[in-house]
Amino acid sequence: MSNSINRRIILASRPNGAPVAENFRLVTEPVPGPGEGQVVLRTIWLSLAPYMFWRMRDEKSYAAPVAVGDVMVGATVGEVVASRHADFAPGDLALGGGGWQEFAALDGASLRKVDPAWGPTSLSLNVLGGNGLTAYAGLLDIGKPKPGETVVVAAASGGVGSLVGQIARIKGARAIGIAGGAEKCAFVRDELGFDACLDHRSPSFAADLAAACPNGIDVYFENVGGAVWEAVLPLLNDFARIPVCGLIAQYAATEAPPGPNRVPEVMRAILTKRLTLRGFISSDYAAMYDAFFANALAWVRDGKLRYREDITEGLENAPQALLSMLSGKNFGKVLVRVGPES
Amino acid sequence: MSNSINRRIILASRPNGAPVAENFRLVTEPVPGPGEGQVVLRTIWLSLAPYMFWRMRDEKSYAAPVAVGDVMVGATVGEVVASRHADFAPGDLALGGGGWQEFAALDGASLRKVDPAWGPTSLSLNVLGGNGLTAYAGLLDIGKPKPGETVVVAAASGGVGSLVGQIARIKGARAIGIAGGAEKCAFVRDELGFDACLDHRSPSFAADLAAACPNGIDVYFENVGGAVWEAVLPLLNDFARIPVCGLIAQYAATEAPPGPNRVPEVMRAILTKRLTLRGFISSDYAAMYDAFFANALAWVRDGKLRYREDITEGLENAPQALLSMLSGKNFGKVLVRVGPES
Repeated sequence: MSNSINRRIILASRPNGAPVAENFRLVTEPVPGPGEGQVVLRTIWLSLAPYMFWRMRDEKSYAAPVAVGDVMVGATVGEVVASRHADFAPGDLALGGGGWQEFAALDGASLRKVDPAWGPTSLSLNVLGGNGLTAYAGLLDIGKPKPGETVVVAAASGGVGSLVGQIARIKGARAIGIAGGAEKCAFVRDELGFDACLDHRSPSFAADLAAACPNGIDVYFENVGGAVWEAVLPLLNDFARIPVCGLIAQYAATEAPPGPNRVPEVMRAILTKRLTLRGFISSDYAAMYDAFFANALAWVRDGKLRYREDITEGLENAPQALLSMLSGKNFGKVLVRVGPES
Repeated sequence: MSNSINRRIILASRPNGAPVAENFRLVTEPVPGPGEGQVVLRTIWLSLAPYMFWRMRDEKSYAAPVAVGDVMVGATVGEVVASRHADFAPGDLALGGGGWQEFAALDGASLRKVDPAWGPTSLSLNVLGGNGLTAYAGLLDIGKPKPGETVVVAAASGGVGSLVGQIARIKGARAIGIAGGAEKCAFVRDELGFDACLDHRSPSFAADLAAACPNGIDVYFENVGGAVWEAVLPLLNDFARIPVCGLIAQYAATEAPPGPNRVPEVMRAILTKRLTLRGFISSDYAAMYDAFFANALAWVRDGKLRYREDITEGLENAPQALLSMLSGKNFGKVLVRVGPES
């Protein structure tokens, strides 16, 4: 181990609405040793994702909230520095839930080995990891795009959305992205190869979206909620599928927005258009992991799956990176470089 | 033919909000003759159902609206009185879309023969017809109840809801009904054998529903929308399934109800609980008809599928029967006896 101090970022207090820097605190502790069956992982990369905001709040969600005083949760890729698990030896690279800290003692059974031959290690937190599985499983198991159909994805320059549109195109569908600002839209269209990308900040957004979808929308991959969802609703075709993956536009709301109450309108669209809405998280799809990984690795190597990383240097800057992402300022998959590669 | 006059009820004007009697008009025309490949059916039973209200409005729905001046649409069982189709002869009984009239000229290919050995002919508009297929397909294909799970169905004394709960129990699930008033609730519980039935008019309805579902709700068969749906939402379990079949509580609304806008809350529940909502209509399930019919006929004969009919006498009273149903005053499957059995 390069030092004996473990820097960690804990949840100092729960946010009231949008989180603020004061909700986090940097603390130091001794580096842990491995318990029986455990591995100590030195964090190289920490992945930041919108779900972390839910875990900061004391509300029922799909996972228990982080306790105040506990280290923030998060997926990491790191180097094994000590091991009491037969499958791991010092120097191995592994993917796990190390959280916002420099060192984590983790059950070996909870880790996946990372092969340097796969490419940059950060890919295991992005195209080859949770983001990739989320895009792959949600799009293919729920969205089920057919060749020639129109797939719309919000947050199209982000970690998940960027992959959804590219996989849709691999499957022969049209991919229409939605992103915030001209620069992101140009990237989605020109670098990722989407058929079009609309700026949701434009005053003509609803009309632009309708013009980009002359045959309506068959799959809407929901990442944002709020006003974008309400613009998509009238364009959905009969039998459209809506994988509900995230709702980043709603995360900071402390109360329901003003009326009218549009729930009856949404329910009526579900009925008359025979829509399917289904919420999911990637951990529901562990059984699809192997098929996903084999495809994703091949697609990355063939240049069919491109990606952009939005890298923040240093664990101490992770809180600001999360706040920035929640307000839509990130451009690509958000990663924090916590330590050197090896 | 017993007479040469065909009494028909046409759409006289479109409703503005809830429909009124003046939206209908009784007219007379000569009884039609059969065109090539057609059959003339003398109506015995006319089925009334909530979807008819949508067809009265000039709005996009899953079927084109009835044109002002056209006969109101509806499923009928009748007696063949003239035939230019090889499969039908005078005296045969058949199920078809005869509409609100005493005689209809229909394509033979659009009709199903009705066998008197199946029991009362009205059953082909109820347990053995569209209502039955709606309940069967929506519950089994979308709801997928497992033994021991809790299935909640609104409008539980009505044509579809009454069957949903009974099929849920046949499949080993608990069936909890929701209905309007003590008399309907007693019928649902005591005659149909649901495990419980709650009165949505009771001031303690939300608490009563929670108490009746101590293990939460795994399937909610949505027939009504509005306030009942909002009471069900917090009780839904992770991975709950919601077949969206009807929204009778919302039918007459001319504008969205006052706020707050609860769409974000519904979307968040879909995400965090990984709910599946899917709209459907029975005609989407033509491929399931044979399996449905064989099961339903056996269940009726074994006494496992009970039903109640709410019969109005005379075509001229059909408008009032529809208005009454839309305001929740019916008690059982709504049928109009248009003519004698034979």
